[in-house]
Amino acid sequence: MSKGLPKRNEDYSLWYNELVKRADLAENSPVRGCMIIKPYGFSIWEKMQAALDKMFKDTGHTNAYFPIFIPKSYLSKEASHVEGFAKECAVVTHYRLKNAPDGSGVIVDPEAKLEEELIIRPTSETVIWSAYKNWVQSYRDLPILLNQWANVVRWEMRTRIFLRTAEFLWQEGHTAHATAKEAQEETLQMLEVYATFAEQHLALPVIRGVKTPNERFAGAEDTYCIEALMQDGKALQAGTSHFLGQNFAKAFDVKFANKEGKLDYVWGTSWGVSTRLMGALIMAHSDDEGLVLPPKLAPIQVVIVPIFKGEEQLAKISEKVQVVRNELLAKGISVKFDTRDTHSPGYKFADYELKGVPVRIAIGPRDLENGTAEVARRDTKEKKVYALEGLANHIETLLEDIQQNIYNKALAFRQANTTKVDSYAEFKEVLDSKGGFVLAHWDGTSETEEIIKDETKATIRCIPINAQPEEGKCMYSGKPSSRRVVFARAY
Amino acid sequence: MSKGLPKRNEDYSLWYNELVKRADLAENSPVRGCMIIKPYGFSIWEKMQAALDKMFKDTGHTNAYFPIFIPKSYLSKEASHVEGFAKECAVVTHYRLKNAPDGSGVIVDPEAKLEEELIIRPTSETVIWSAYKNWVQSYRDLPILLNQWANVVRWEMRTRIFLRTAEFLWQEGHTAHATAKEAQEETLQMLEVYATFAEQHLALPVIRGVKTPNERFAGAEDTYCIEALMQDGKALQAGTSHFLGQNFAKAFDVKFANKEGKLDYVWGTSWGVSTRLMGALIMAHSDDEGLVLPPKLAPIQVVIVPIFKGEEQLAKISEKVQVVRNELLAKGISVKFDTRDTHSPGYKFADYELKGVPVRIAIGPRDLENGTAEVARRDTKEKKVYALEGLANHIETLLEDIQQNIYNKALAFRQANTTKVDSYAEFKEVLDSKGGFVLAHWDGTSETEEIIKDETKATIRCIPINAQPEEGKCMYSGKPSSRRVVFARAY
Repeated sequence: MSKGLPKRNEDYSLWYNELVKRADLAENSPVRGCMIIKPYGFSIWEKMQAALDKMFKDTGHTNAYFPIFIPKSYLSKEASHVEGFAKECAVVTHYRLKNAPDGSGVIVDPEAKLEEELIIRPTSETVIWSAYKNWVQSYRDLPILLNQWANVVRWEMRTRIFLRTAEFLWQEGHTAHATAKEAQEETLQMLEVYATFAEQHLALPVIRGVKTPNERFAGAEDTYCIEALMQDGKALQAGTSHFLGQNFAKAFDVKFANKEGKLDYVWGTSWGVSTRLMGALIMAHSDDEGLVLPPKLAPIQVVIVPIFKGEEQLAKISEKVQVVRNELLAKGISVKFDTRDTHSPGYKFADYELKGVPVRIAIGPRDLENGTAEVARRDTKEKKVYALEGLANHIETLLEDIQQNIYNKALAFRQANTTKVDSYAEFKEVLDSKGGFVLAHWDGTSETEEIIKDETKATIRCIPINAQPEEGKCMYSGKPSSRRVVFARAY
Repeated sequence: MSKGLPKRNEDYSLWYNELVKRADLAENSPVRGCMIIKPYGFSIWEKMQAALDKMFKDTGHTNAYFPIFIPKSYLSKEASHVEGFAKECAVVTHYRLKNAPDGSGVIVDPEAKLEEELIIRPTSETVIWSAYKNWVQSYRDLPILLNQWANVVRWEMRTRIFLRTAEFLWQEGHTAHATAKEAQEETLQMLEVYATFAEQHLALPVIRGVKTPNERFAGAEDTYCIEALMQDGKALQAGTSHFLGQNFAKAFDVKFANKEGKLDYVWGTSWGVSTRLMGALIMAHSDDEGLVLPPKLAPIQVVIVPIFKGEEQLAKISEKVQVVRNELLAKGISVKFDTRDTHSPGYKFADYELKGVPVRIAIGPRDLENGTAEVARRDTKEKKVYALEGLANHIETLLEDIQQNIYNKALAFRQANTTKVDSYAEFKEVLDSKGGFVLAHWDGTSETEEIIKDETKATIRCIPINAQPEEGKCMYSGKPSSRRVVFARAY
């Protein structure tokens, strides 16, 4: 199965596309820029959803659902918001088809034209804040802590499966608060939820930072983000959390009476992660044999492959396997026992490697005699023989080790590919030779940021929130700077 | 809170609308025909989703995700399918907005017109079968057992919150099989899954039946359904399961090589339930005081209301409550302890009645002395005092009793409102006096069915799958009939 998967160091982009396809994660649909998420891919997304949903609920949020359609006039109410999204909107203009008079099929019925065009949500701030106007009268109605799991559409010109698609799945949190401080705390709390999720579930170390004004969400006062490094040295923004200030409250006239009875505009936040995380997961850990999945997100954590000839041998192996399998299931570990006789063990090994199953157990006739099994871990490809007695306990620990090891490996990679530079020449040299995160001084102006972006295709990924103050000079302009920011070429 | 909720027997329709609003389940959005599902309503929907999703997975299905956009040409490939959906399609024609030259806001950019219009999915058969074409070569690729949780859009002219909305949430199963028999078995299996879910979770007895050709899904060979009776005597179709024959396989050229190596078209099914079930749940059980929720779907199963004056008394009550609360939580029962001092116990009682919380526990100073609590059940409004010792065990049993009682009550209602009639005069009389399900003989023709519908607004809800053969004469035409069918006026 894994034969012929392109090598990462030869063509990273082709490797990614082929891996997504061969591991049966997703495929491009005939609808331009849209993807079909196949069952195996979707089951990973479901694990992400479940973990995130629990974290949202543990921090006091509840789910709700708002319409997919946004009246065109709503989008226009927040000036920078419409500026940011107008260029990539799918627009519904009609509500009926009819048979073509010439019998050639169906056509749009020109008589069924909407009075006002509807936009398919690219994000839901406008439709949600228009509802909040009716929900909020006094400080007693605050905070509102909502989340929505939904599909959104942004008509991107250049798409890439999982990373940038016209339609994608995501969650969008939308909260409303009585004070700026509370909204800012919420913004940072959700950033931390995302960072924790990335590190503990995706096994992906991230930099927590704030975007420059140029890179802010359209309509936000501040955009915080988590940034991860992929194996090709490019950065990937894995989640954002926005402090909206009173921008949407003003646009939709959402006021509340505070404890003193004085009217004020409500403070807002929004935050989201999407199926883009699937791309991050794949690109961060996988190798030339296929996916490498952290156990916490693997749909199948353990696969058991019997090595047998004939029914009788399989029956004997199955008897032993059932014991181990039940022990594993009792620990909440997902197990697949692949008894197919239509495929060889070698084929199965390669296929489960391709699919990223963290642990493979093989049991053959000799193991039966010895009361043993061969355990192979996907991340290091290490194989060892263990006694069946106590095997489940060993696997439990092993899964934890694998989760941690995948994280450690990604962290070591990031450390090896994070470079401090002090001159623009060095900056360009590092970008071209190895890429990665480049820490450099910047004068804080949009002009310099734009020039660097134009000349090198590197953007300021973020200003790390835990950055140490350090006096220096902007690598481009030589003007003073008080701390380094993170540059990278990015997805 | 519940003051002023309209009475069911005075204005059922107004009662329903007001209940949806006051119990904070959902509201109409400014976007025509679309609804906002509010957190409390959505948490009930999440419970439905979780239960159904488990049932789907237990029967071998996995989730996937297909694009929301359907190229117009796809919809046209299955003749009766496009016939059924063309009249209610939201059509995307453009992909960009731009600033109006006169500065009046944003307008649709006429230069960003799509080459082919895209339909927002009203259902996904076409986009899914176009993918199946590439997924299926041989019998080894079958069956495909997929489900999708998604939003769909049908541009209905007359909408009603939860029951009929332009956008709604649903799940749609789409399966592909090697034989007609297997597909038919799948169709009936999923009908039974829906019926079991309705009866065991919604506490709603349903009739399992098959639709007449007139009422079939557009593109199906057979449409099976579950039909429930609401308290106003109207029927509600709560779920459908379609045997698609080879219709979509032929439309999208999905062929497979069978075991003998011969090419044949694949056999299909599709099946779905939607947020309409929320409407069914509300209308079947609730009363003039508010929602009545079956415990299995109640977001809060038990609410504990302390009756106290001052912090000290509350602290003493809380101490006792924590013990009971932990015992309940350990049993997997959801509990809310409402310690707010901003609202009176009476206000809280009425509010939780409105919200349909199945069990309310009240604890006051006298209970503290006696080691007791007052337990009120929402369904019968019965109140009793119990010892705190052993209370959790009692509540556990009580929740099961309530679940069963709500079902029994709905079943008794249905029995009392199911009438056998043998003449058309009697038929009309029953429909006008009490409504309900009317069992009558029908000659099997679409003509008779249409006339009865036009004259009485009653439709054939289904031909029950377990109907006993019974020779008789069509109540309208007098022609022979071999069994009774179920008529009703319906939502």
